[in-house]
Amino acid sequence: MVEETTDKNKVWDVVMIGAGPASLAAAVYTTREDIETVLFEKGAIGGLAAVTDWVDNYPGFPKGISGLDLSANLQAQAERFGAKIELGEVSKIEDKGDYKLLQTTEGEYKAKAILIATGSDYKKIGVPGEAEFYARGVHYCATCDGAFYRDKKLVVVGGGNSAAQESLFLTKFATHIDLLVRSTFKASDILQKEVKQNPKITIHIGTTTDEIVGKDGKVTKVIGTDTASGKKVEFPTDGVFVFVGLSPNTEFLAGSSIELDNIGLIKTSMNDLQTNMPGVFVAGDVHSGATMQIASAVGEGATAALHIREYLEGKPHPIQN
Amino acid sequence: MVEETTDKNKVWDVVMIGAGPASLAAAVYTTREDIETVLFEKGAIGGLAAVTDWVDNYPGFPKGISGLDLSANLQAQAERFGAKIELGEVSKIEDKGDYKLLQTTEGEYKAKAILIATGSDYKKIGVPGEAEFYARGVHYCATCDGAFYRDKKLVVVGGGNSAAQESLFLTKFATHIDLLVRSTFKASDILQKEVKQNPKITIHIGTTTDEIVGKDGKVTKVIGTDTASGKKVEFPTDGVFVFVGLSPNTEFLAGSSIELDNIGLIKTSMNDLQTNMPGVFVAGDVHSGATMQIASAVGEGATAALHIREYLEGKPHPIQN
Repeated sequence: MVEETTDKNKVWDVVMIGAGPASLAAAVYTTREDIETVLFEKGAIGGLAAVTDWVDNYPGFPKGISGLDLSANLQAQAERFGAKIELGEVSKIEDKGDYKLLQTTEGEYKAKAILIATGSDYKKIGVPGEAEFYARGVHYCATCDGAFYRDKKLVVVGGGNSAAQESLFLTKFATHIDLLVRSTFKASDILQKEVKQNPKITIHIGTTTDEIVGKDGKVTKVIGTDTASGKKVEFPTDGVFVFVGLSPNTEFLAGSSIELDNIGLIKTSMNDLQTNMPGVFVAGDVHSGATMQIASAVGEGATAALHIREYLEGKPHPIQN
Repeated sequence: MVEETTDKNKVWDVVMIGAGPASLAAAVYTTREDIETVLFEKGAIGGLAAVTDWVDNYPGFPKGISGLDLSANLQAQAERFGAKIELGEVSKIEDKGDYKLLQTTEGEYKAKAILIATGSDYKKIGVPGEAEFYARGVHYCATCDGAFYRDKKLVVVGGGNSAAQESLFLTKFATHIDLLVRSTFKASDILQKEVKQNPKITIHIGTTTDEIVGKDGKVTKVIGTDTASGKKVEFPTDGVFVFVGLSPNTEFLAGSSIELDNIGLIKTSMNDLQTNMPGVFVAGDVHSGATMQIASAVGEGATAALHIREYLEGKPHPIQN
């Protein structure tokens, strides 16, 4: 009983929500400076990086590194300096003045500062083959994986600005793209015009994506339905890019006063990565302006850690004065 | 002659000024997406990272990595995707509307976009031993190197807010700190009070730092002068931290319209890392809010690269719509 009471009253220097690249990087910084840090992770440690097959563009690994190895490295480095990782979920944060109160599956936690780094997920279309070929033929980020499809054929799924713009971008690499638009093509007029004029792109309006089919671990075709005729259609392809939106992991902030932007990402003030709730910081892909890049997340994590130190010390950034 | 004329009229997609972690990271991104990129470096490729003995906190290397190896990795990765590095200096940039014109030691260059990533240097005190023990006993960044001095004695040089604040911070690690203030202690009243109250710090007002002395590659003492008595004084120590200011590498922008902050760092608009000159971006330690951390620089480089792509395409960020 005594221990439990002690734990309940313990005020951590910082609780980080999520244990992806952003907060693991931040934790390397905070724990190395003896700022007591605990991270909550409800899914995989390493976040989206952990389920990325191969990361070619994280600076420092000239030949690339597997997402699993990079995640393990980030975790080992944070733990080396004393970061504690709890497998559990945070359901609510409240500003209690002297401290922040967190409701978690592991009970209540108190913290002087919080780093929100819960990331964003790509929206899925939920068809057979999508999960099976995730990151090995089915992709959600052209910047990350487009370059793997030089001189290959692609299918792109989506009808908004992202799908149009990323199709144009992917023509840098791919020889041909079939763009499958389920209902109406909602991209801006100028993007629609460019897509229509591009000889490498064939647009299929009113075509659903029903199944992603592969053989020997490789995607070979997409099966869809032409909704006008009701007929099945097939698109032989080397890979599929899905652009149907982003889903920021900010549900747990419903009812809190933390300000979000129009797609649900967390807003910050200029430069210091602090949200509108003092002492609550944000880094990585849940931050407004998210790039969905590990390098950006790691950089924001490091920067946030320095601002958390500033906040805890109650003093401005030492470099800047 | 023909070749030269062709070169003169060539408009690069992007010219990056500086080849430190920020622009090498950015170049991985731009070149991987076939955005033609050249980097200008007047000093060492890798920037300050290249002359850092050991980097313990760059995320991804759990046991740390030498600054030289990390720099070589960053360079190899950028070059793998086609980045071109010119050894030379940029002396002026001008917005010519359709393109930017750069005056360089290698002649005029034209570019659609520019990334300024020239970094900042720590100001030096210019005494014997300072260069010899650089990064191996003489340091300029407490966040970077403080943790190497757990249970050791330190000398801190400086009399401003940074010196005071970082001395307080370094007492987390060091057993004792001699703070050498050349003339007057200029730190804020509240910081001065905290420093004076800290039992681990001894302040020496009016004490110059004349020489840093070492043996077998290790710093052993600092020799100074008590300016009141004119007598030599010695401070046995395991290391020296110098906090006498930051020197942003922005001299070449004198006469340009690029906006700087009060310490000469480049200002940007919210989130997109663009300066007030359209198409000119900034990343790393020359950016207002610089953290002097490789991770932050790399993150900003990656983020800037995505915004450069946006700028070149004339379209908003695909993830955000």
